[in-house]
Amino acid sequence: MEKFNIHILGCGSALPTTRHQATSQVLNIREKLFMIDCGEGAQVQLRRAKLKFSRLNHIFISHLHGDHCFGLMGLISTFGMLERTADLHIHAHADLQRLLEPQLEFFCKGMPYQVVFHPFNPGERTVIYDDRSVSVETIPLRHRLPTCGFLFREKPTPNHIRRDMIDFYGIPICMMNRIKNGEDYTLEDGRVIPNSELTTPSDPPRAYAYCSDTVYLPRIAAQVAGVDLLFHEATFTESEAVRAKQTLHSTAAQAARIAKDAQVKRLLIGHFSARYEDEKALLEEAQAIFPDTLAADEGLKISL
Amino acid sequence: MEKFNIHILGCGSALPTTRHQATSQVLNIREKLFMIDCGEGAQVQLRRAKLKFSRLNHIFISHLHGDHCFGLMGLISTFGMLERTADLHIHAHADLQRLLEPQLEFFCKGMPYQVVFHPFNPGERTVIYDDRSVSVETIPLRHRLPTCGFLFREKPTPNHIRRDMIDFYGIPICMMNRIKNGEDYTLEDGRVIPNSELTTPSDPPRAYAYCSDTVYLPRIAAQVAGVDLLFHEATFTESEAVRAKQTLHSTAAQAARIAKDAQVKRLLIGHFSARYEDEKALLEEAQAIFPDTLAADEGLKISL
Repeated sequence: MEKFNIHILGCGSALPTTRHQATSQVLNIREKLFMIDCGEGAQVQLRRAKLKFSRLNHIFISHLHGDHCFGLMGLISTFGMLERTADLHIHAHADLQRLLEPQLEFFCKGMPYQVVFHPFNPGERTVIYDDRSVSVETIPLRHRLPTCGFLFREKPTPNHIRRDMIDFYGIPICMMNRIKNGEDYTLEDGRVIPNSELTTPSDPPRAYAYCSDTVYLPRIAAQVAGVDLLFHEATFTESEAVRAKQTLHSTAAQAARIAKDAQVKRLLIGHFSARYEDEKALLEEAQAIFPDTLAADEGLKISL
Repeated sequence: MEKFNIHILGCGSALPTTRHQATSQVLNIREKLFMIDCGEGAQVQLRRAKLKFSRLNHIFISHLHGDHCFGLMGLISTFGMLERTADLHIHAHADLQRLLEPQLEFFCKGMPYQVVFHPFNPGERTVIYDDRSVSVETIPLRHRLPTCGFLFREKPTPNHIRRDMIDFYGIPICMMNRIKNGEDYTLEDGRVIPNSELTTPSDPPRAYAYCSDTVYLPRIAAQVAGVDLLFHEATFTESEAVRAKQTLHSTAAQAARIAKDAQVKRLLIGHFSARYEDEKALLEEAQAIFPDTLAADEGLKISL
């Protein structure tokens, strides 16, 4: 099965602590890296996770609160010192470009690569990235400023060739791509061998949804229905439900309700408030509603 | 003796590694904290060192390379979330204000405290800070853009009262401050008791000099002569002397030569290039010329 890993670089909330870094995650999808959010310290966490800097070409920023983007300048600047030449694409609200450009001009003059901004409207559900392996769709969220999550959907992979059947019928190599992609094969005597006899079905495409930061928003469930892994913020426990609503954050129980309604395979909670010494209470609260819940942690890697 | 501590928050160079953070130090002088440089991650290192955020009112920035100032936005923003009300003073080249203000406007709107910029000319030797405990003077350095070091000089403290002599002569409490500050005392019978009989001399004022980043600059020695501790950058070993000169950095041997010429009490080297797996070679090279040399490390605290 091809790689689809989620690496947690940071899962704290606005106030960084010595336990949790500011928000950042990296997806490794078939050896291409995609970063989601880039809080302060993300570049060191990326190094710590032993992820290859050169494989990271796209960064997606959910919203412009400092704990989700203050690591960008350090990362961009380090990539320049490491003689990167490939463009680095940043997908974010248009305000980010306006804020970063004067800094890039000052701190990164003469860098051997370009930072390319791709502004999008976080309030609108749109596909903002698409290649032959994966597409990325925004998930409009509700927070104190324009915010969206991201839904990463893997593209279907070709069927697996059944070597034994290919040999049995003596099918030439030049036909393999067409057979992988579903074609039947006609023998010289006119007999048609159905594709189902020549291949086994490929692994079903996987999906990862990232929802942070947001107030409890039941409508998310429809968009993330059935994903293999849902990351949902769980800044507070239910005992702080009023504060969660006021600050437009979610509780662990609310994150679990979304997971349950969406019938996702697994839930990953994070964006923990600095007030919690550990995540036990948050995790137990979510698991009571949705048992397949994990708590994020720096260095955690999940394979889908 | 009153506090005069140096805390190393980060002592790496431009490329952060998992061993060394970007540059930042904090001085604790009589329970007032002064930060020198503020590389990415400084706020977490400050927390890790268990230094009280509220005691930090002044930050001094040596020059505007990212590894010396990319931690400012995170720090400023966190102070705001912690409901700080006291002004935070940033002493730096004028360009910093121009670069930070649009970010403060966007990310820190409505913060309960003010950031006050104090621009200075790094090319000119000037006292840029002065209170009743300490003065800070710039040390013009030579690097790829305008840069200076900082010389922290403690103010003399009053003499220590000799309790036994005060009791012996029956000197009233109201006279203590004048006696501490050097006055003699006249008894009712007209006899004059010299101050030297009533006090013991105070501890000699201490001084700390910070020199980073800079090419080898022999003239520094005169300005930092005799300081209790000299921090001098030692990005490279002598085997990289050509590269040091090209990038306007110093070698460990050059740092040691400044320390020796200046007859400082101790030398602390730092700003280590990411190429060194450990600091043994750098430290040995410096110690061969100036034996009282220490290598900086994250979490290191030195009391003067």
